[in-house]
Amino acid sequence: MRRIVFFATSWVVAATVALGDPLPSWSEGPARDRLIAFVEAVTDPANADFVAAADRIAVFDNDGTLWGEQPAYFQFLFALDRLKAMAAEDPAVLENDVLKAAAEGDLKTVLEAGEEGLLEVVNATHAGLAVAEFQAEVLAWLETARHPSTGLRYDAMTYQPMVELLRYLRDEGFETFIVSGGGIHFMRAFTEAAYGIPSQNVVGTLGETKYETEGGEPRVVKAPGIAFLDDKEGKPIGIDRAIGKRPILAGGNSDGDFAMIEWTTAGPGPRLGLIIHHTDADREFAYDRDSAIGRLNDGLDKGPGMGWLIVNMAKDWDRIYTGAR
Amino acid sequence: MRRIVFFATSWVVAATVALGDPLPSWSEGPARDRLIAFVEAVTDPANADFVAAADRIAVFDNDGTLWGEQPAYFQFLFALDRLKAMAAEDPAVLENDVLKAAAEGDLKTVLEAGEEGLLEVVNATHAGLAVAEFQAEVLAWLETARHPSTGLRYDAMTYQPMVELLRYLRDEGFETFIVSGGGIHFMRAFTEAAYGIPSQNVVGTLGETKYETEGGEPRVVKAPGIAFLDDKEGKPIGIDRAIGKRPILAGGNSDGDFAMIEWTTAGPGPRLGLIIHHTDADREFAYDRDSAIGRLNDGLDKGPGMGWLIVNMAKDWDRIYTGAR
Repeated sequence: MRRIVFFATSWVVAATVALGDPLPSWSEGPARDRLIAFVEAVTDPANADFVAAADRIAVFDNDGTLWGEQPAYFQFLFALDRLKAMAAEDPAVLENDVLKAAAEGDLKTVLEAGEEGLLEVVNATHAGLAVAEFQAEVLAWLETARHPSTGLRYDAMTYQPMVELLRYLRDEGFETFIVSGGGIHFMRAFTEAAYGIPSQNVVGTLGETKYETEGGEPRVVKAPGIAFLDDKEGKPIGIDRAIGKRPILAGGNSDGDFAMIEWTTAGPGPRLGLIIHHTDADREFAYDRDSAIGRLNDGLDKGPGMGWLIVNMAKDWDRIYTGAR
Repeated sequence: MRRIVFFATSWVVAATVALGDPLPSWSEGPARDRLIAFVEAVTDPANADFVAAADRIAVFDNDGTLWGEQPAYFQFLFALDRLKAMAAEDPAVLENDVLKAAAEGDLKTVLEAGEEGLLEVVNATHAGLAVAEFQAEVLAWLETARHPSTGLRYDAMTYQPMVELLRYLRDEGFETFIVSGGGIHFMRAFTEAAYGIPSQNVVGTLGETKYETEGGEPRVVKAPGIAFLDDKEGKPIGIDRAIGKRPILAGGNSDGDFAMIEWTTAGPGPRLGLIIHHTDADREFAYDRDSAIGRLNDGLDKGPGMGWLIVNMAKDWDRIYTGAR
């Protein structure tokens, strides 16, 4: 992960000037005020809402919460690029109509095949590689791939306000975790460099793996299939499995995050639930109830009644991407 | 977990006088020397074997490596005690011959039913409780249960030399993890107090769970069945899932730990594999190749050839249990 070399000095500098103001990319206003008030309350031993550092667990969804997810999940775009590259070397890898459609960029056919269609693409492009080899492929892709509408590196499309929030929480004794429907091996290739979150704090969907000792070199190798889907009710279950503590802060942006935030905020004592609402068609994308990616209904309908903070990206964020002002 | 109050001042004191000597319960000799030499090499920036702190991952089996496991896994003894208590309240819980035998202490019948027999007992005694309720049961059991031959609390039967090794490693910038065939919820009830290892650093066998919102109070509830068995080849897979880094130090005591230590020590750079060999019939138990619990063949046959350190408990440890001199 240390191999990621940041390519532009501008946003490295921007990411490190936060010493005085912990949340410089958040607009002055109630969202920012509420975040700071929560952190100050739970870290002040004299406050009735004080929480011991060991229990300051904060969890965040990744796609659409910490970085972009339009026009499709970035891991899926990686899989498509990899499939095309594999097919260029050996057309026989396109062994069915879904894979042929995917390699031609015909996403409609792939998406019409539902979860099985997506799994076909993931299996064809992820399985068979040792975990370390797979992650080298992800890093190489990040070096060359550019987002179709922003022209940015994908790992420069992290949200600067959220990167600042993660750092602020850690500076205040929180332990920060990603809890995402994305694949753990894909995410771990870049989460330490992008967010300061090490691999052991990344909870996600688990592809099957097997332990192989052929040729005398033991390896953990990616295999076809999904061992655990870290989405919806899977998120509180994934947190229980991997962390074993109920978080006091949870952030997400879609219905897939509802159960995680519900479980977090229903606990006793001070709790904070966050929904990142994509409202900024000019600087990012605007979508919620009708989007195929990142659909958001429950959080908007029930979140405010449970005291969740609904972050309005257009209004509450002075800046969007870490990699562009 | 903070509810565990240590009952005897003698071993609390013994556990905290190690400021000068990091491993006071290890006998002077080659095992102790090798541990210290390894730690000094990987933490010295001037040494060719220096390893950055982020990669100083150390993993340890629990049963038979960090605490005792005779005459049976302590989690199984907990399950038997709980089954008896449940049957005293409602005999109908003993709904088949295996459970009836278990409640009568007829372990032979239970063990003859193999894995299914053990699973019957675990399901009957673990499933249906919210995780927090289950862990309260474990803590209550630890307060009252005593080991049949030592008379000690079970959580006083941690191995003092290993508790010292864990602390020494953390003091030197390692992150320490448990990677055990035991159940995560059972272990997490006491690992922080017993070993200084928080719940998020406990990797283990996963019972099934479900997320329930009945009655308005969201809970993660234990359910029948095993979602992941963290034993043998499952150990490197569990490490990849939960930690995402290949450890540089791994310790175990049985064939169930072989794959984990093999994967750890086959990596490039400095590596250390440990086998705790139970050789001390006077102070603990002596068992290896023919034991039903903690059977050890591969580590003795192949470990030395791979450079693993075989720790001879009778010779290398001045003291055994944390709770007794």
